[in-house]
Amino acid sequence: MSKIPEPTIERLVLYSRPLETLLRTGTLVISSGKLARLCGVNAAQVRKDLAYFGEFGVRGVGYDVRDLLHHITSILGSNRQWRLCIVGCGNLGSALLQNENFKSRGYFFVAAFDLDSRRTGKELPGGLTVEAAEQIQDAVKERAIEVGVITTTRDRAQRAANLLMQAGIRAVLNFASTHIRAPECCLIENVDFTVKLENLAYHLSKTG
Amino acid sequence: MSKIPEPTIERLVLYSRPLETLLRTGTLVISSGKLARLCGVNAAQVRKDLAYFGEFGVRGVGYDVRDLLHHITSILGSNRQWRLCIVGCGNLGSALLQNENFKSRGYFFVAAFDLDSRRTGKELPGGLTVEAAEQIQDAVKERAIEVGVITTTRDRAQRAANLLMQAGIRAVLNFASTHIRAPECCLIENVDFTVKLENLAYHLSKTG
Repeated sequence: MSKIPEPTIERLVLYSRPLETLLRTGTLVISSGKLARLCGVNAAQVRKDLAYFGEFGVRGVGYDVRDLLHHITSILGSNRQWRLCIVGCGNLGSALLQNENFKSRGYFFVAAFDLDSRRTGKELPGGLTVEAAEQIQDAVKERAIEVGVITTTRDRAQRAANLLMQAGIRAVLNFASTHIRAPECCLIENVDFTVKLENLAYHLSKTG
Repeated sequence: MSKIPEPTIERLVLYSRPLETLLRTGTLVISSGKLARLCGVNAAQVRKDLAYFGEFGVRGVGYDVRDLLHHITSILGSNRQWRLCIVGCGNLGSALLQNENFKSRGYFFVAAFDLDSRRTGKELPGGLTVEAAEQIQDAVKERAIEVGVITTTRDRAQRAANLLMQAGIRAVLNFASTHIRAPECCLIENVDFTVKLENLAYHLSKTG
């Protein structure tokens, strides 16, 4: 259980998505083959990944949807709530605050900051108000914020990250298109929209 | 060359990012170890991935940065320009139109549509104007659009995809948090912001 490889963790997240839909729509059992098709991976991979946490499913029948989802979410730590803040309240920041997925998965934005003081006080979608960068330190402590999300422009991202890390944040989701330097104790996950586009372009090049 | 696995393709995209920076800053040669560290993968993986397209690099010295980047971009089809349209011109759509990464990688938005006719005619960041959904068919043909990007709300995403596919688009990047049904000839890549958050949450759970 302790040494689940990173790619498996990422696939567990992927598996959880259709399982949630199946549970909502009343499907009780799913085969590894069907789950694999829904996620775009092969069935052997699904079985191998799920085998990391013991014997699951009944051969020739499939997995109990509710059990499997419960198990995956408890492994991922997604069966609890997380408190997030955002730094950078432009279009992208506003879009994330409106995104329906975060709340439904237990991710709650409890503060929104901007490095540009002219934005301070602006009301945002979802009910938050822009706070000044100087408030990060106190807010992180008082509101027990665990994850920082950076949606600043590229040139401000490192400053945003420094402020978050100085305040004690150890996990950062970075949407700015730049590399963020961080000590080993901090986890930085980068979101790069163009990576998926390059996959599409690759396939179009091959088939077109 | 013809059977490069999907995960390798995704890593090639990742490798290209630091290589671009190195080229800009005048670094001529890089070792697999250093490239691996910059990308957060292990060196053996880098060497294995690059071996898919023949002998590269000089043992004990490294790879020629310019050659390697050139080779990767030509494999990925990212050494040419792609014409994109966006459907859904809210905050997220506006953010993407402003994103500096797309243009620099050869992805050009040449049209922006919205299923809500009240947005038609609105001016957007980057110089485009919102067009009505009824224009999709003609615009895709006349402007030779190859990739559609969906940034609508969840409930409108399938309709947006249908309009794109009817117009002849075969590659769609979907930011709406819903599964899109498509025939096999069409490629749908889904962007789910919460997947990376769940990775962070998993690691925080383990270390916290």
